[in-house]
Amino acid sequence: MNKEIVKGRVREIRGRMSKKRIKCLIVTHKANVSYCTGFLGDDSWAVISRGGVYLITDSRYTEQAQKECAGCKIIERAEPMAEAAAKLVKRFKSVHTVYIEKSSSVSVLESLDKHVKGKVKAVGGIIETVREYKNADEARAIRTAGRTAMKALKISLKFARAGISENELAGRIDFEIRKLGAVISFDTIVAFGANASRPHHQPGPRKLKKNDTMLIDFGVKFNSYCCDITRCFIRGKPSAFYKSVYEAVKEAQAAAIKEVRDGVSKLDVDSAAREVIAGYDLPVYGHGTGHGLGMEIHEEPYVKDKSKGKLREGQVITIEPGVYIPGNLGVRIEDDILVTKRGCEVLTKGLKKPF
Amino acid sequence: MNKEIVKGRVREIRGRMSKKRIKCLIVTHKANVSYCTGFLGDDSWAVISRGGVYLITDSRYTEQAQKECAGCKIIERAEPMAEAAAKLVKRFKSVHTVYIEKSSSVSVLESLDKHVKGKVKAVGGIIETVREYKNADEARAIRTAGRTAMKALKISLKFARAGISENELAGRIDFEIRKLGAVISFDTIVAFGANASRPHHQPGPRKLKKNDTMLIDFGVKFNSYCCDITRCFIRGKPSAFYKSVYEAVKEAQAAAIKEVRDGVSKLDVDSAAREVIAGYDLPVYGHGTGHGLGMEIHEEPYVKDKSKGKLREGQVITIEPGVYIPGNLGVRIEDDILVTKRGCEVLTKGLKKPF
Repeated sequence: MNKEIVKGRVREIRGRMSKKRIKCLIVTHKANVSYCTGFLGDDSWAVISRGGVYLITDSRYTEQAQKECAGCKIIERAEPMAEAAAKLVKRFKSVHTVYIEKSSSVSVLESLDKHVKGKVKAVGGIIETVREYKNADEARAIRTAGRTAMKALKISLKFARAGISENELAGRIDFEIRKLGAVISFDTIVAFGANASRPHHQPGPRKLKKNDTMLIDFGVKFNSYCCDITRCFIRGKPSAFYKSVYEAVKEAQAAAIKEVRDGVSKLDVDSAAREVIAGYDLPVYGHGTGHGLGMEIHEEPYVKDKSKGKLREGQVITIEPGVYIPGNLGVRIEDDILVTKRGCEVLTKGLKKPF
Repeated sequence: MNKEIVKGRVREIRGRMSKKRIKCLIVTHKANVSYCTGFLGDDSWAVISRGGVYLITDSRYTEQAQKECAGCKIIERAEPMAEAAAKLVKRFKSVHTVYIEKSSSVSVLESLDKHVKGKVKAVGGIIETVREYKNADEARAIRTAGRTAMKALKISLKFARAGISENELAGRIDFEIRKLGAVISFDTIVAFGANASRPHHQPGPRKLKKNDTMLIDFGVKFNSYCCDITRCFIRGKPSAFYKSVYEAVKEAQAAAIKEVRDGVSKLDVDSAAREVIAGYDLPVYGHGTGHGLGMEIHEEPYVKDKSKGKLREGQVITIEPGVYIPGNLGVRIEDDILVTKRGCEVLTKGLKKPF
């Protein structure tokens, strides 16, 4: 990771820390550790003090950390994680209260409490709120992830012939993504026919039949940034009902996307999609209309029927309305949207004409 | 999931709960939720009271939960998770203290504290200690996962020709696993040449050359149970040094496996492997010699140079010594071992003769 990029992020994080009078933050959440150090491995913590950024890792990752974290001091620990962290913060003479992230586990809190001399308090959202706003490089990474995903999907669809299983098609998509030099951003969902009525269906042995429908929900991670896309297809002729549902979902998605701009209330975006679905007398989906994404596949902000507040320039969210009728069908269309000053940019494009 | 299997697990969990006078446990850790309900989806909690087991989920998962959780009461929540849980436990009149798992986040603890009328306390290891001991069905699932993994690896090796990238070979392995109707148990590691000196190397664009070495660390999940295997190969002729390192690691692994039986101290198993490596004047690996595995790829017990206690019948652990020389090579051999009364059973077999 570029040293200057990480430096800029740490500057913003320190700004938020000092507003809350936090002199030392122990970062345990993996995506947050990556964000403030550049480190892409597992099982490591970051510690941000006024004087430096430290990565506490173990011998499995030392070589990787030296490559990835140019701006950090790397500590190869021999003791349990909390003890290593306590040993480090002991060196910061002026620090009397150490903060951990609220996403840390209760056992982390307890073991730090045991080993750290001063107080240990929990604080939420320090790094998450910085991560919420994407700069041009981050938006570009998501755009590239989207393009790679679409490329892989196009190739994979050639294999989506009668007889292929959900499992194999999911594996094919993952493989094509790998061949393009990228990785998946979450477990690929492939659902044939009525299986698609479960929004988070897990691919299984079900085979594709003639005139079968497919729902594919998948994503690519590029340069640590995720995209998240859902598309529907059909092998053969769709039923008139399926077609009408698809058109309704497409209209609902377009209506929500049309609302997106800096300053719009999240609720307005959410209801724009729901109203279209309801207007067609179709069952309104139970999940949210969208979620933020970036280094993680689900992050702030969430666009739901109970969301508060407004969307802001630089946020990236999915818009993904759907219609689910158990035993019959499931249709969802999902794209990733960058909120801009006057509107938005759809970062994921293509393959929205299945008939 | 079979209703009777889940019932038996819950009986054991309730036994451990009542020893600690726990009347109500809120389960947030995904693998633990699966273990006590049969549910395989995400974003759901289980609540175990004296009277029943409840799964709190949302509309995305209701249909799936109805299929998977025959013995549970399913609650489709409309409010935030902690509020839904608080609403449920309110119904248990005799419960004055609600327990959550120590693996829960601090923010979960805080929001339950806010909404639950009585006290909220954290407790560690209740379900984990039940999960640590595998019955015949669970050992069988890991054995099947191991067989599937080996089948996929054998097919994939045919594609491991000069010019293939680490990325593509990793993708090929994942794809062959999917084609066999299974899924990976963690992100596949493929490291060519000196890249293998990083024990957790992430596959990249590096291409396989003539006489190149490969380290492949991967696993399969079958019926929710993981296997975890590492093998080394070479395309062509190994150097005399690589060969001698490989033989040393193989000998170290065999020495550790020989120690494994009910009642052996973890430390004896760990040092058996390390002593062999040290005896050859090779650098002793910094990671543990092994870890438990089951529904998760890393779980109790851990076999490390600081481990306390003994191995017990029914535990399943990896044994995975290695030698890492940055800029030169990395060799690790890893198998999954079931601890039995008088010895052990190696659950993962084959492909250990790379020359």
